[in-house]
Amino acid sequence: MTIAMLERRANLLGPSYRLFYDEPVHLVRGEGVWLWDADGKRYLDMYNNVPCVGHCHPRVVGALTKAASTLNTHTRYLHDGVLNLAERLLATMPKELGHVMFTCTGSEANDLAIRVAKAATGGTGVIVTANAYHGVTELISGMSPALGAGVPIGPGVYVVPAPKIGGGNAVGEDFAEGVRGALARMAEDGVKPAALLVDTLFSSDGMVCDPSGFLAPAVAAFRAAGGVFIADEVQPGFGRTGVMWGFMRHGLVPDLITMGKPMGNGHPIAAMAARPDVLANFAKSARYFNTFGGNTVSTAVAGAVLDVIEDEGLIGNAASMGAYLLAGVRGMASPRFGNIRGAGLYLGVDLVTPSGGPDADAAKRVVNGLRGRGVLIGSASPAGNALKIRPPLPINRDAADFFLQAFSDTLAELGAP
Amino acid sequence: MTIAMLERRANLLGPSYRLFYDEPVHLVRGEGVWLWDADGKRYLDMYNNVPCVGHCHPRVVGALTKAASTLNTHTRYLHDGVLNLAERLLATMPKELGHVMFTCTGSEANDLAIRVAKAATGGTGVIVTANAYHGVTELISGMSPALGAGVPIGPGVYVVPAPKIGGGNAVGEDFAEGVRGALARMAEDGVKPAALLVDTLFSSDGMVCDPSGFLAPAVAAFRAAGGVFIADEVQPGFGRTGVMWGFMRHGLVPDLITMGKPMGNGHPIAAMAARPDVLANFAKSARYFNTFGGNTVSTAVAGAVLDVIEDEGLIGNAASMGAYLLAGVRGMASPRFGNIRGAGLYLGVDLVTPSGGPDADAAKRVVNGLRGRGVLIGSASPAGNALKIRPPLPINRDAADFFLQAFSDTLAELGAP
Repeated sequence: MTIAMLERRANLLGPSYRLFYDEPVHLVRGEGVWLWDADGKRYLDMYNNVPCVGHCHPRVVGALTKAASTLNTHTRYLHDGVLNLAERLLATMPKELGHVMFTCTGSEANDLAIRVAKAATGGTGVIVTANAYHGVTELISGMSPALGAGVPIGPGVYVVPAPKIGGGNAVGEDFAEGVRGALARMAEDGVKPAALLVDTLFSSDGMVCDPSGFLAPAVAAFRAAGGVFIADEVQPGFGRTGVMWGFMRHGLVPDLITMGKPMGNGHPIAAMAARPDVLANFAKSARYFNTFGGNTVSTAVAGAVLDVIEDEGLIGNAASMGAYLLAGVRGMASPRFGNIRGAGLYLGVDLVTPSGGPDADAAKRVVNGLRGRGVLIGSASPAGNALKIRPPLPINRDAADFFLQAFSDTLAELGAP
Repeated sequence: MTIAMLERRANLLGPSYRLFYDEPVHLVRGEGVWLWDADGKRYLDMYNNVPCVGHCHPRVVGALTKAASTLNTHTRYLHDGVLNLAERLLATMPKELGHVMFTCTGSEANDLAIRVAKAATGGTGVIVTANAYHGVTELISGMSPALGAGVPIGPGVYVVPAPKIGGGNAVGEDFAEGVRGALARMAEDGVKPAALLVDTLFSSDGMVCDPSGFLAPAVAAFRAAGGVFIADEVQPGFGRTGVMWGFMRHGLVPDLITMGKPMGNGHPIAAMAARPDVLANFAKSARYFNTFGGNTVSTAVAGAVLDVIEDEGLIGNAASMGAYLLAGVRGMASPRFGNIRGAGLYLGVDLVTPSGGPDADAAKRVVNGLRGRGVLIGSASPAGNALKIRPPLPINRDAADFFLQAFSDTLAELGAP
């Protein structure tokens, strides 16, 4: 059955698609933090950040159904849904952010933000980190070294070392030093700076969250050179880190903010927020219309997601359950553990060899072992040895304990390193 | 109320957004081919091609609700929904098309198609028409002259004259001549051809549909130079022209096909279909993952849209009601009419001055006059004088007659040219 499905998939979708797991999971149902496969096996979802308020949340599905039954149309007619959503989003941000523009994906939001940054600065130089991932348009895939050597870095894109995991108090200054180096290379090349584009959790660089505030010196250096700071909140946004936006952990006010994945709990909606003065030049030369972006249905869904986040106290839950999970993992004190870090419900656990080097094989075995025990997590980072743990936000104590037990059992099964 | 909403909108969304109409329409409800505004006024929708099976179609809403209540997840887990949809789409296409990749918007589909075309050909040269519109990513906005002089044409993009409206049997050869000219300029510039990218209805060039088959010589010329042909079916696709795909009217087999707008009846789903040999090089170097693209909900919705198109015979209805409307408009024989053309339920009516020149002012007055009479249409074309008439596909005779009467009355009200 699975074999036949794999063949059918390769035939129909072609060779650019990838699956998770040695033995891929065939999912058929989701509810809250739980997923079920075609054989009725249940999995605790400790991986998916998109269904942020829980799989198939009834309030979100209800809002979707009501909106889709009433009207689905675009932003060239007047409708208060898009206005209410823009207002609510801006209310969660520093007052300097004044406008919101809607797209369908984080890729489109980042693509738009780069266009806006270029228009605002008159520059073309963009800085990204060594294993960054920002999206799949041609422009943004050229700013996503995580896609590998087969996808070339774009013109005007300067790659800097990611902030160092576990680098302590030097992280901020070291990262700023890399940014200053890239600025110097830009100057040599005659390239004017446009944007410093970073995921404020550095998710695909292995997740770098400590110490809070480390981003500030790099942003200051880049702004001093005339560029703007784009906070890519597609992964950190909407409460995952225990605060609404990842940049808040760094005490920053971005020039542009992009958001996506969790925004519609799986419904395709994304957006860019902007300081009005930063948006002005772009708007002078270019109109922007995204057929589905900000439509009456998508905005109702995103509004329901904000309702649930507020009414169920999910940001507070992310903070407290994140701390609980982090303490639980640390308490295992496995000799396989390297750096362990967490910001709310996004935990990174490096697995290392006895000599302290990255152990991607162990990470793969843990991911597959946990799958066997009914828990879905992922791995990432340039070396492939960082376990990525980021459940939907409403995870409770029982589910967390289920995960911790399964994780502990899986590590025990692996035996000594 | 409307004034307050306009101010709120300008404040919240910023200056890149545009509205239809001198006095924008504030819509609150849709059903079939009808829309209602906040004052309860009813409008016949003769403009929107996105809600192709009718606004808020209960089967589509039902499929959306069921899927969203069951599971909303992505293509890195196995699910048969995306496979079933790919299979059904391919069944509507020439057998040479073998794979389907899913995105959320037509912009993303075109962006991906250009990346694939470049990888397939090793070239970078792209040909588009003079007032083409293909999307809003940086890459694709550079291939969309319709966005105006403020959005520069991208590197390697060559603009050719659009096929001539009403050009008779010479249209195909004239258009091919333009393409050959651009190929000669590419050769001079040392640019290798990658893609000929055209909307097979040339919607934003004013809608060019006659004579059927005129595209073939240009495509042959471009392929002979080593490039691939991308049929942008974002507007023509899904039965609008009385056949499933616009390229079918030209007897062509595209290398890549992009689709979007009507695909999910307003739900954000889009796709690119490819010949496997054309996709192969891209897939060798690049993986592709679109978080929401091809998710379990979007694919269920798109499947329901195909069901309705089939079960309600909407392609046949597009052909017959399109012919009825075209005959009805022609029968008015207004002295203001220039070229009148139609392909299924996409009609273009040029308004001209007594000397035969484009009359954009008259077009604007007709659009606003019809709005007053409860009918929504649009205008387009480089000169702004082409009325765009393209209702949802299930329009019936009564609704068509309502439109024809309102159109006739509006023209009468305008008086002699």
